[in-house]
This record gives sequence, structure tokens and C-alpha cells, in this order.
Amino acid sequence: MKILIINGPNLNILGKRQPEIYGYQDFNGFLEQLKKRFSHIEIDYYQSNHEGALIDRIQQADGQYEGIVLNAGAYAHTSIAITDAIQAVSCGVVEVHISNIYAREAFRHTSYLAPYCKGVITGFGLMGYQLAIDSFINE
Amino acid sequence: MKILIINGPNLNILGKRQPEIYGYQDFNGFLEQLKKRFSHIEIDYYQSNHEGALIDRIQQADGQYEGIVLNAGAYAHTSIAITDAIQAVSCGVVEVHISNIYAREAFRHTSYLAPYCKGVITGFGLMGYQLAIDSFINE
Amino acid sequence: MKILIINGPNLNILGKRQPEIYGYQDFNGFLEQLKKRFSHIEIDYYQSNHEGALIDRIQQADGQYEGIVLNAGAYAHTSIAITDAIQAVSCGVVEVHISNIYAREAFRHTSYLAPYCKGVITGFGLMGYQLAIDSFINE
Amino acid sequence: MKILIINGPNLNILGKRQPEIYGYQDFNGFLEQLKKRFSHIEIDYYQSNHEGALIDRIQQADGQYEGIVLNAGAYAHTSIAITDAIQAVSCGVVEVHISNIYAREAFRHTSYLAPYCKGVITGFGLMGYQLAIDSFINE
Amino acid sequence: MKILIINGPNLNILGKRQPEIYGYQDFNGFLEQLKKRFSHIEIDYYQSNHEGALIDRIQQADGQYEGIVLNAGAYAHTSIAITDAIQAVSCGVVEVHISNIYAREAFRHTSYLAPYCKGVITGFGLMGYQLAIDSFINE
Amino acid sequence: MKILIINGPNLNILGKRQPEIYGYQDFNGFLEQLKKRFSHIEIDYYQSNHEGALIDRIQQADGQYEGIVLNAGAYAHTSIAITDAIQAVSCGVVEVHISNIYAREAFRHTSYLAPYCKGVITGFGLMGYQLAIDSFINE
Amino acid sequence: MKILIINGPNLNILGKRQPEIYGYQDFNGFLEQLKKRFSHIEIDYYQSNHEGALIDRIQQADGQYEGIVLNAGAYAHTSIAITDAIQAVSCGVVEVHISNIYAREAFRHTSYLAPYCKGVITGFGLMGYQLAIDSFINE
Amino acid sequence: MKILIINGPNLNILGKRQPEIYGYQDFNGFLEQLKKRFSHIEIDYYQSNHEGALIDRIQQADGQYEGIVLNAGAYAHTSIAITDAIQAVSCGVVEVHISNIYAREAFRHTSYLAPYCKGVITGFGLMGYQLAIDSFINE
Amino acid sequence: MKILIINGPNLNILGKRQPEIYGYQDFNGFLEQLKKRFSHIEIDYYQSNHEGALIDRIQQADGQYEGIVLNAGAYAHTSIAITDAIQAVSCGVVEVHISNIYAREAFRHTSYLAPYCKGVITGFGLMGYQLAIDSFINE
Amino acid sequence: MKILIINGPNLNILGKRQPEIYGYQDFNGFLEQLKKRFSHIEIDYYQSNHEGALIDRIQQADGQYEGIVLNAGAYAHTSIAITDAIQAVSCGVVEVHISNIYAREAFRHTSYLAPYCKGVITGFGLMGYQLAIDSFINE
Amino acid sequence: MKILIINGPNLNILGKRQPEIYGYQDFNGFLEQLKKRFSHIEIDYYQSNHEGALIDRIQQADGQYEGIVLNAGAYAHTSIAITDAIQAVSCGVVEVHISNIYAREAFRHTSYLAPYCKGVITGFGLMGYQLAIDSFINE
Amino acid sequence: MKILIINGPNLNILGKRQPEIYGYQDFNGFLEQLKKRFSHIEIDYYQSNHEGALIDRIQQADGQYEGIVLNAGAYAHTSIAITDAIQAVSCGVVEVHISNIYAREAFRHTSYLAPYCKGVITGFGLMGYQLAIDSFINE
Repeated sequence: MKILIINGPNLNILGKRQPEIYGYQDFNGFLEQLKKRFSHIEIDYYQSNHEGALIDRIQQADGQYEGIVLNAGAYAHTSIAITDAIQAVSCGVVEVHISNIYAREAFRHTSYLAPYCKGVITGFGLMGYQLAIDSFINE
Repeated sequence: MKILIINGPNLNILGKRQPEIYGYQDFNGFLEQLKKRFSHIEIDYYQSNHEGALIDRIQQADGQYEGIVLNAGAYAHTSIAITDAIQAVSCGVVEVHISNIYAREAFRHTSYLAPYCKGVITGFGLMGYQLAIDSFINE
Repeated sequence: MKILIINGPNLNILGKRQPEIYGYQDFNGFLEQLKKRFSHIEIDYYQSNHEGALIDRIQQADGQYEGIVLNAGAYAHTSIAITDAIQAVSCGVVEVHISNIYAREAFRHTSYLAPYCKGVITGFGLMGYQLAIDSFINE
Repeated sequence: MKILIINGPNLNILGKRQPEIYGYQDFNGFLEQLKKRFSHIEIDYYQSNHEGALIDRIQQADGQYEGIVLNAGAYAHTSIAITDAIQAVSCGVVEVHISNIYAREAFRHTSYLAPYCKGVITGFGLMGYQLAIDSFINE
Repeated sequence: MKILIINGPNLNILGKRQPEIYGYQDFNGFLEQLKKRFSHIEIDYYQSNHEGALIDRIQQADGQYEGIVLNAGAYAHTSIAITDAIQAVSCGVVEVHISNIYAREAFRHTSYLAPYCKGVITGFGLMGYQLAIDSFINE
Repeated sequence: MKILIINGPNLNILGKRQPEIYGYQDFNGFLEQLKKRFSHIEIDYYQSNHEGALIDRIQQADGQYEGIVLNAGAYAHTSIAITDAIQAVSCGVVEVHISNIYAREAFRHTSYLAPYCKGVITGFGLMGYQLAIDSFINE
Repeated sequence: MKILIINGPNLNILGKRQPEIYGYQDFNGFLEQLKKRFSHIEIDYYQSNHEGALIDRIQQADGQYEGIVLNAGAYAHTSIAITDAIQAVSCGVVEVHISNIYAREAFRHTSYLAPYCKGVITGFGLMGYQLAIDSFINE
Repeated sequence: MKILIINGPNLNILGKRQPEIYGYQDFNGFLEQLKKRFSHIEIDYYQSNHEGALIDRIQQADGQYEGIVLNAGAYAHTSIAITDAIQAVSCGVVEVHISNIYAREAFRHTSYLAPYCKGVITGFGLMGYQLAIDSFINE
Repeated sequence: MKILIINGPNLNILGKRQPEIYGYQDFNGFLEQLKKRFSHIEIDYYQSNHEGALIDRIQQADGQYEGIVLNAGAYAHTSIAITDAIQAVSCGVVEVHISNIYAREAFRHTSYLAPYCKGVITGFGLMGYQLAIDSFINE
Repeated sequence: MKILIINGPNLNILGKRQPEIYGYQDFNGFLEQLKKRFSHIEIDYYQSNHEGALIDRIQQADGQYEGIVLNAGAYAHTSIAITDAIQAVSCGVVEVHISNIYAREAFRHTSYLAPYCKGVITGFGLMGYQLAIDSFINE
Repeated sequence: MKILIINGPNLNILGKRQPEIYGYQDFNGFLEQLKKRFSHIEIDYYQSNHEGALIDRIQQADGQYEGIVLNAGAYAHTSIAITDAIQAVSCGVVEVHISNIYAREAFRHTSYLAPYCKGVITGFGLMGYQLAIDSFINE
Repeated sequence: MKILIINGPNLNILGKRQPEIYGYQDFNGFLEQLKKRFSHIEIDYYQSNHEGALIDRIQQADGQYEGIVLNAGAYAHTSIAITDAIQAVSCGVVEVHISNIYAREAFRHTSYLAPYCKGVITGFGLMGYQLAIDSFINE
């Protein structure tokens, strides 16, 4: 089983970025833990601050992975183009948000992506990525 | 560790109710599987179609459980009173929805409860309850 | 043929309640007339001010009746949970309102239930129940 | 007793028009059945695709009929001018819609006419006309 | 003179519930003080978390009390059914809110009940109940 | 000087139509008075309940009259097509409403026509037509 | 007959203020013409840029004048307090706007005052004041 | 203890102004009664129709009074500037409305001031001022 | 191949009507050019300012033409009845607008018809009709 | 004559992407056909999933081409930056959409680009590109 | 060069008013510093809590100053009358806000004045006035 | 002191782009002037049409500069991702717009970035950059 984790804008500076909201752990360290926990599956990782690069990567993932764990960050609230990319690929996509977006500004309460995802996991911090991978394994 | 699962309106007829959306499994059967999987923790279960009864149960749970897994069903979209009950208890609450509410009618896209929950898990079918319990165990 | 009439909140005090809007006749007296008129079919009756109790009753009616005549009163405008119950049962539901809800406050102009009912009859006073039963007989 | 049935735009091609929504029966055939059923009363019929012609006919009906059964079709959602005509005549008007307008596009959920009608009957197919006539007889 | 105080959802846990908003005093203790202060009038008390139970109690109060002091809690913002019950009884109803609802979330700024109440008292903590009783005495 | 008065839907039954709003005088009688008062100018009159006929008449008036006094009735609130006709003719148009449309239903508060008219006179009863003619004479 | 003309903010600099919209004539010169034209009636005039001063003057006018011609300028779109003053006085008020407010910014399209005025005259330039006085004379 | 009562626009003509809404008593007479009732505290009074004058007076009251009872009339619905003045002074402000503003036009349902006041008392007629003073005494 | 061109309100005065927006060519002259260009197909033409007449013509066209080129003018923004006629006929309809409706008033930005048309061509002047016919030929 | 075709996000996977909406043909194959059809003009092609790259390309096209055929895909609904690029170049831009965007989700019904384009062609599948090129040739 | 600084409501108590938002410095002290810094130009100052007085002063400034630095305080969000005064004077107006109004309540995010000002400077504390004067000097 | 100026989409073609709005000067020329004026501080410059590249640059600037002057162009109105980047860096950001965005289309009136910036300077042309640098120097 192969899973691709895709992180969107500003998630490359996790740990430094508003840690009271996003926590103090950086993603690479967390990724190591995650790979150890799920040592029986293959986990690839991609991050970009560029909307277009995220679309490129989602398109390329088609047929290569059983599932995509996607934290599109702020693009979840503004990008119909990423939404279209999700609809265009056949592998299931799980949307993850680290913070509880419903407890923040109103413009973070909606996601263009959600209707076309397999499921959405919000507010559990980095543990959300782990739950998302679990959801593919337990399918 | 003690977890309370609370199901709201129309979840007592799961398996019979719009199975193309909610699936064909009834909740009691699933609960048995869930208890087996998490045999090392105590899982209590409560269901009611009554908004007031759900509030009563949430209040009583305060101090009795490490966590509440709450699928308030349609009341998630209309009940400020349940929202207030969640704010009034100290144990964490995880909101679960079986179907992907963002892919359905617009009035199902918002939840009064979500801002006051620890996290939200949407669209994974009955597996969502399992992921919610995992989130308490992995805390 | 068996028909269940369900009345929602404040319809137990019909005749006393704002008679300039709802009329001076109490429902029990009217129910007697109705049963006489439709002596060849079986008419059951249930009233509650409790949203949850209405859901319970709708669920129990599944498979027991050819049709439900439902005046959910004010819950028509606020209850997604009753809407879900209607979608969960296989017998047809006809929505009735005694007063012309479109000639009253804006919050009475919409019904969550209507899209999932067989039909809607509004503004004919108590006669609306009779027309609703006719609609099942003439099907 | 004299009743006037008025049908608005596109109801002249009933039976051919989107039959999955409006049914396969044409209105003239149905009108014959209706006249047989209510042989003791006089039923006149008028149809036009012209908003102005419907207003003309409603005005002329004043004082000539005990009641008007009006299916204004799409004009129900857009015509304040027909609404004014209804307010200008003294005989009661019952609004009928063949399809369940609440289960269709949002722009069909509201009716300018409804607040000024005696009652509204929606979603029962052609049977709605029969129920409307019943409502005048049982007054 | 007989006054009925009705408290809605989550007011049974006053003193424990978000005390930074609702204060540290429990309602029963306060009620004793209130009865002492107004020893010349009869004060009855009812609390429920159930919308339907609140409607039942308001209906039963009709003709039994000079006034109702109603803190419907969160139901003030969502319940048209309680609004209808208020309109159905002849004794005056005064709406009370402990916290200043206008300084909180937007969904707490409106009350379905207010237009049909004699008056509204908001933001004075438990003292609001005392002012409400004064308003009946000074009428 | 030649002036054309155009009346829209339901203004042919003035005097009979909701006289508490529109008054008890019929328009033909008023027109005679008006022609006497303005005996030195030529006044033509047209009325139709048909939106298309009003457009036809406005188009034909181009170049034939110094001014048009237009009471489009309910079409003022719904007709962009009449608005376009006004923009297409070179003679000035004054919009008149008999009743104070701002004191009535919200859907009567706006006029598609007004931005393209020379001026608007509202709420003066039939005197509004006289003031409108005055406005052309005093230009 | 005594008429009071009240002008609101920025109407004291008429002639200098955006003459492409409001014209090149100053109000005092126009007032002289107006008094000559209506030499048989008494016309008083008041202007202020202060909302409160306009309210003071309207209150004082009560019982002193047969009518008030009020151009509240921008306050028409924002002042509920002037609206209340209009409702508090018994003499009729006619609202006048020099420019066609419907052809300008959206925030100029509505008037708090209009529903409580006898009538509204908009877009005729200074002639609007003359038509307003005519409306009182012809009453 | 010193209390300042501030009344906003059109409250100087209480008793004459729409008495079916605001009652037949003038405020000065009522003030005498109020001072007698609360003879042990000092009550000052100020009224103005000018928004700016109300702001001036609120600013001057800072440090001079234990509390301000403020009926800003229509300015409650439109004045952010008065709101800012309330936030700028340290003494508590209680907002009072004589009529039940929630039972009137929609633009009267909101108050800019309310979120920054100690509490709000609405709909009790002149008695509201008495309850407001009570609220300061019982603090 | 037979194509029907239908033009709605105010398109009969093309060339004279706001030529800075709609151009200086009249439609009949253009139609001659168009027929020459497409001499191998049959082109019929109909214009009316009457909404009902347009509906009549669309209905009659069913089965008679391979396609309809429809410029409904202002009715595109207001007519659900024409929308229903389009849905009722089996031949494809292409919506054309001469001007770029998206660069004009907001009320011209939406079309009721568009969702039910084969395609929409906007802003190309009279050339839009030619492109529409091309779209049928190239199908 | 030189024309530049620019395709936005997800149009590089045409033929594979939701073929029930976008068709089964890939764009490169179609482009060959197009170039053959328009062999007398020069057609360049650019595609990117990156909003910024599309802006770069539009800027570079200025002065190099007689026209741009732009299918910005999902960016049409969200990108003011591309809109600004269109306004910044002097060559005409024609907006094309393959699917009928008005028959899909509400967020696809609006285009930031449209008001600044020469015209818009929607819903004709790949043929839309051909019609767009025709529109430049026939200018 | 002559510059007029105009401060609106509640800016007379700067330093005392919500210093966590507006700072601890009073305006007169700051004005002295400012005059020293810009000793080569003449700076006049006016403050009022009265909307009308601000309008009076803006009108009088016409032709007397090269520029106006206007902090209209809360009136920026509510006053169309001040907006009109700005449009009526020929000297440029720069709008200043001390606090970052975009980081506060939603009703502070909009300014009626801004579209008609030369520029807007927001959030720099008292330094904003200095930058505004700089903008006139550097013109 | 080191300042970074970041320009967003279409600002690379300043001088050529809609000069009636943005002026005729190109940014590089202006930058030279700016560096001369502020010769005692270090000014770096970055421009990109790519939202992601702007985010990358803002992240890299963290800890390298005392301040960022950011004209995000059209992305100010649409980019939550840039907003998040601003919140993630510790150096202050000043938002600049060359044109008066409040005098243009409604979609340019709001900025996602503004609430998280130190201040906003709008409408002063290129001078706005100079004022922004001044604001850092004068801090």
C-alpha cells in the first residue's frame, strides 16, 4: 500500500508558525514517527506553497497511490482548481486540518475540497494525519 | 479509560435508514465489533431522538468519562442548546458524522457544535467512531 | 387502509390557541367528524409537543400505515431531525398546515419537511386534514 | 356553483412536457374526468402562456365564479402583477402546483401569489386540481 | 399573586457551567433568596432541558399565574415552537437572559420569543429574575 | 405639447381594486378631469395588463410625444424589458405610483425603471399624474 | 396656508456643490422665485447640517404648518431619528430629492423617511419643491 | 449614589409622540415620581435630539456618576459614535427602551450599544427606567 | 437543416436602440446577410416583445427545427416561464446576447435560461448569431 | 494573423478528467485538427496549472498576437489577478468554457474575467475554441 | 501651505479612551509635536463630536486649505452626509484611522468616505497624521 | 535597517498597465529614486506574479528584515495563504495599494491581509511605498 501526504502553503514552517495554533513540532520530525508507526506501508511526502504545484502533484499521483492525505492549508478555502484536480483523480483523498478550523475566522469554516473527499478530519493536530492513514488501512 | 458514545436522532434505525447514504450495518452490531477492538477500555453507549435527552446525558457524563464521541445527527445543524452542554462539561468531545455532510444539502454543511469540540471526523461511515476513539487513546 | 395523523407542538390546545388564526374548533371534536367521514379506513392519531417524540412516532409508523398526515407545526420550520425521519420511512407523508403560513411571519414561509413529502396542503383550516386523507384514498 | 380553472405557461403541453416531472396525461383528458366527477357544478377552463392574458381572465372572473383554481406555473415565482389581480377580485383563489416545487430548484420554492390565496396545494400531480375543487365544495 | 419561573436548557447546572459567563451561584440557592425577598407572592419554579417539556409547562401555566419569567436559554434563539406557546397563553411572559447575549456569538443576538413577550431583561446576571418579578408587581 | 399616459396591470380596474389603497375613483373619470385641467396640451392614454403591449406602446411613442407618464404598476418591480424600452426612446419618462410603495411589502420598494426615468412621483394618489404633467410643462 | 421647507446637510451650498448633479442655482435665489409663484401662501425655510437640529425643527413645526417639504439629503438614507420625528408630528411631510437617487450609488436608493411621508418626489431638480407645494395646495 | 438618565431623540415629546406605542405620560412628570421613589439617591437628567450632544454628555459623566441609564432612542440602531463613547467611560451603562423594539420594524431589532452595556431592559414602558436604577442599587 | 432565430423584447428596434451598446445595424439587414452566408440551410425568424408570444413560438418550434438561436433580451434575466418552455422542447437552444452582459448592470449577469441551453454566446455583437448557427452545423 | 490559446488548470488532462463532463478527446489531438482547419493563421498554445504562469504568459502575449483564446478553467471563478492581466494587455481576449458552467455548481456561475473579455463562449465542448477563433477572423 | 486636521467623535478624549487600542498620548500634546515637525507649514485643528459640526467645518475649509486630514472616527462608517461634504469641497482629503480598523468589529471595516478621499492611512497610531501631511507635501 | 518591498501580480508591468489608474512610471525607475531618498537604509525588492512565490519570499524574509512593504495586488482580495504567511513571520508588514481600491469594483474593497498588517496605505500612487518606509523609520 502506497500513501501520498500532500501539504499546502505555510505547512513547511510548521513548528515555527503560530505554534499556539499549529503546535511546536516540525513536520519532518513528525513524518519520521509516522513512517515508523506505519512501517508496513509506503508513505511519500510533498509540500509546496504553490497552488499550481499542488495540482501538478495530485494529477501525477493518479494511479500511483491507494490514497492521498491532503492538507491544502488556506487553499482549502479558496481553490476550486485543486477541487477539480481531486475530482479528476481516481484514488481517494482524505482532507486533514491540524487546527479546528470551525473555531477560527469565518472564512476558514468552508472547504471547496470537502464535498469531493472521502472524508474530513479536523482539529486533532498532527494526529489527524495518522487517523487519515488509518482510514485507508481500515477501508 | 472510559468513553461514552452518544448518537442523536434517527441513528437508532441505522441500517434501515437511507442505506445508500448511511450504510447497511445496524449500530448495535457495529458497537459489538468496536468493544472487541477496544477491549482494554470501557465504552458506554446512549442514543435518543430527543434533543433534551441528549443534553441530559452530556451533563451527566461530566467527570465520568475521558471523552465523548458525539454524533448529534441533524441536531448538529440546529441545536445551540447541545452546543451549550458541550461547553459546560470538562471532558473532550469529538464530533462524528457518518456521511460526508459537505456533499449533501447546504443546511448540513454547518455544525453549531464543531467550534467547541476537540475535533471533527466526517464522511468515513461507521469507521469514524473508531477513529474518534483512537484520537482519545493517542492523546 | 390505515392512516396516521401526527400533530406537533401547540396543536393540543387548538380551539383555545389564537383562534383568529387557528379557528375555534378543538382537534378531538374534529377527529370524531373525520373518522365518521372516512369510516371505511382506520385513522390513528398522535400529538406531542416534543420533537423527539414526533421522531419516535414517525419511525414506529414505518410499515404500519399507508400514509402519514403530518402537521409538524412550528417544527416544520426548524427541524432537520424530523426531516430525516420522514426520509427514513417508506410510507408517504403529506404535510398539512392549518393557517396560510405564507401570509404570516417570514420564518414560517419555509419548511424543511416539504421537499421530502408527497405533497403539501396549506391554509384550508382543519379541512386540510380531510384533503390530505383524500389524497391517499385517490392515489 | 361555478369554478374557473386557470392554467399558466407551458401547461398547454402537459403530457409532452418533462413527463418525468409533470406526468404523461394531457390536461384536456384530465379535465373531462374532472367534469364527470364534479358533474353537479360548472367548471370553466382557461389557459394562456401570457402573463397579461392571465390577469385579464382573473379580472373578468370577478363576480362570475365562486372560486378560482389557479396554477400560474412559473409566473407564481415571478409575477407581482398576477398577485395584484388576485388581491383585486373578491372570489377565493386556490393555488395549485402539480410537482412538489420544494423538491426542485430554489427559485421555485417561493410564490408571490400564496400569501393572498385561500390555500395552496402542492405536489399531488393532477389530483391537486380535484382537491382544490373539493376545498370550495366543503367550505 | 403567583409567578412561575421557567428555566431552559443547561440552567440546571448553573454555578458549574462556564462560571466566567454565568456566575458561580447555583439557581436553587438563588431561588431561596428570591422567595425570601418576595415573601408576599407565590413563586413556582420549573426547569427542563427539553423543548417539548417547556412547551407543556407554559401551556399548563395558562390561567394559573399572573406572570411567567422565562429564561429559555439557547432555545430563545432556535425555537419557534416555544414562541407559539407564548402566543397561546394569556398571562404575560418576561424574557430573561443572565449574560449579555449581544456581547457574545452572533447566533445569540436574536430571540424568536422577544416580539411576543411583555419585555426583555438581558445581561444583569441572576438579578435579572428579580427585576422581572418587580416588573409584574409594579404593573 | 403631447403627453402620453401609460398605465400598467390592474390599473384598468381602479376604483374597484383595493380602494383602501388605490382610492374609489376610476381612471377614466379622472382622465376627463385631467384633460380639462390641461386643455392646452394633448393627452393620450393607454392601458394594458400585458408587459409586451406596454413595451410596444413605449416604442411607438418615440418621437410622437414630449413626455410619457408611466405607471407600470407591479411591472415596475419586475420588468427589465420595460426598463430597456425606456432607455431606447428619446422622450423623457416620469414614473408615477398612486400608493406609497415604500409603506407596503418589501418587494414593492424597488423599481427597475426609476434609474432611467426623469423623475419619480410616489404616494400622492391620482394627483401624481397631474404633478407629472406639471413637471413636463414647467421644464 | 403655511408650508415649511426644511433642507438637510450640504444643501446650504447648492449651486457650488457638484453642479453636474445638483445644478448651478443656489437655493436662496430659488426660494425667492418660489415665494413669488406661491404668493398666496406663507413659506418658511430652514436649513441645517445637524441631524439633531432638523429633528428639533420638525418637532417645533407640529401644529404650526399645513405641511412640511423635507429634503433631508443624505440623512434620508441613514436617520431613523428623523423618521421618528416625522411619525411624531401630525402635519403631512413630503420627501423631496433634487437628483434621481435611484441612478446613483446603491446606498442612496433607500430612504428611512419615505414610508412615513405623504409622498415622495425624486429627480426633478429644484422643481421638485414646487411640485411638493402643489401637492399640498391640491389636496 | 448618583445616577444620570440620558434620553435621546424624540423622547422630549413623550406623551405626545405616538402614544399608542410610547404611552401618554410625559417624561418630566415621570421623573418627579422616580426621584420620589429613589429619594435616597441623586438622579440627574439630560435629553437631546443631537447625537453629538449625547456623546458630549456621556463623556462628561465619566467619574461623576455610579451609573448611566441610557435610552438613546433611534440612535441605538445607527450610532457607532455613541457606542464608542460608552466604551470610553468607566461607569456602567444600562440601555433602556420603552417599547418592545423586537415587535416593531426590523431596523429597530439591533442595537450598536448593547454589547458594551451592563444590561438591556426593553419593552416595559417608563417602568424600564425604574428597573434600570434598581439594577445599580442592587449591584 | 432548419434553424429558428427568436429575438425577444426591444430587439425589433436594433440599430435605433442605444447604438453605443447594441450597434447601428438593424436586424433585418443583418438577417439578409446571414441567410446569404448560410444559403444551404433554412433560417426562420421571429421577434416579439411579449413573453407569452415567445413561449408560444418556442413550443411550436418543437420538432420543426434542428436548433433554436434565442436572444431573449431582458427576459433572460427574469423569465422562468421561458426557461420551462426551453426544457419542454427537444431541439437544442443556443442563448445569444449581443452585448457583454457581464460588463453591465448586476441584474444582467444572470440568466434563468442558460443552465438549460446547449451553450451561451455573449458579447460578440451580431456576429454571435452567426457563431450560434455555426455551432449547430458543426455539431 | 496569430492567435494564442491558453488553457488553465486541469485542462492538461482533458480526455481523462471527468469525461462525462469534459468529453473523451485530449486537447493535443484536438489542437492538431484546429490547426488544420485554420491553416492560414498561426495558432500557439500554452497550458499551465499555475495561476502565476498564466499571468506571465498573458503579459508576454501583449503585442504578439491578434487575439487570445483563454479557458482559465477554475481560475475564472477565483482569480482577480488574471483579470488584471487581461485588462493590462491590448489584444482582445475571448473566454471559453468547455462545459455549460451555468448548469453546474453555483460557484462556477460567475467569472471575474468575463467583464473584461471581448466575449464569452460557454458549453459547446471543444468546439468553443473553434468558434472563438472564428470570432477573431470575422471581426 | 495650510493643512486642516479634523478629528471626529471621541477623539477629544484620546489618551483616556481605550488606551490599549488608541494609545496613551493625548492629541493636543501630539499636535504640538506635529507643528514643530512641520514648522514650515500652517496646521489648523478642529474637533467635534457632532456630525453636523464636522460638515460645517469641511464646507468652510473649501478654498482655505491645500488639504484636509480627516479622522472622522465612527462617523466614517455611518455618515453619508460627511461623504457628501467631502465631494463638495475642492481641496484633497486624506482619511486617517489611528487603529487598524480591519482588525476590529466588522462594522468598522467599511468607510463611506474612502472612495472620495485622495488616500487612506490606517493603523499607524498617531503617526498616521504625520504620514498624511507628508502625502500633501510630497504631492 | 533593512526593508523588503514585495510586489504582487501585474506590478512588473507598471507604467504600461492601465496608466490612467496606476500611473505612467515604471517601478524600477521609482525604486532607484526611493533608494536614493532612503540612502541610509537597505531596500531589497522582489516581484512575482505567483502567489506561491510571494509566500516563499515572505517566509524567507523572516528575521532578515525590520519590515516588509507588501503590495500584493489582486491577491490582497483573494489569498488567505499569503495572509497566513504574514501571520507566520515576526517582522511587521505594511500593506500598500497604489490606486484607491475603495473607489473601484466592490471586490477590491476588502483585503484578507489588512487585519494582520501593521497598517494600510491606499490611494497615494507610488508615494505610498515611501510613506510605508517612513512608517518603519519613525516607529
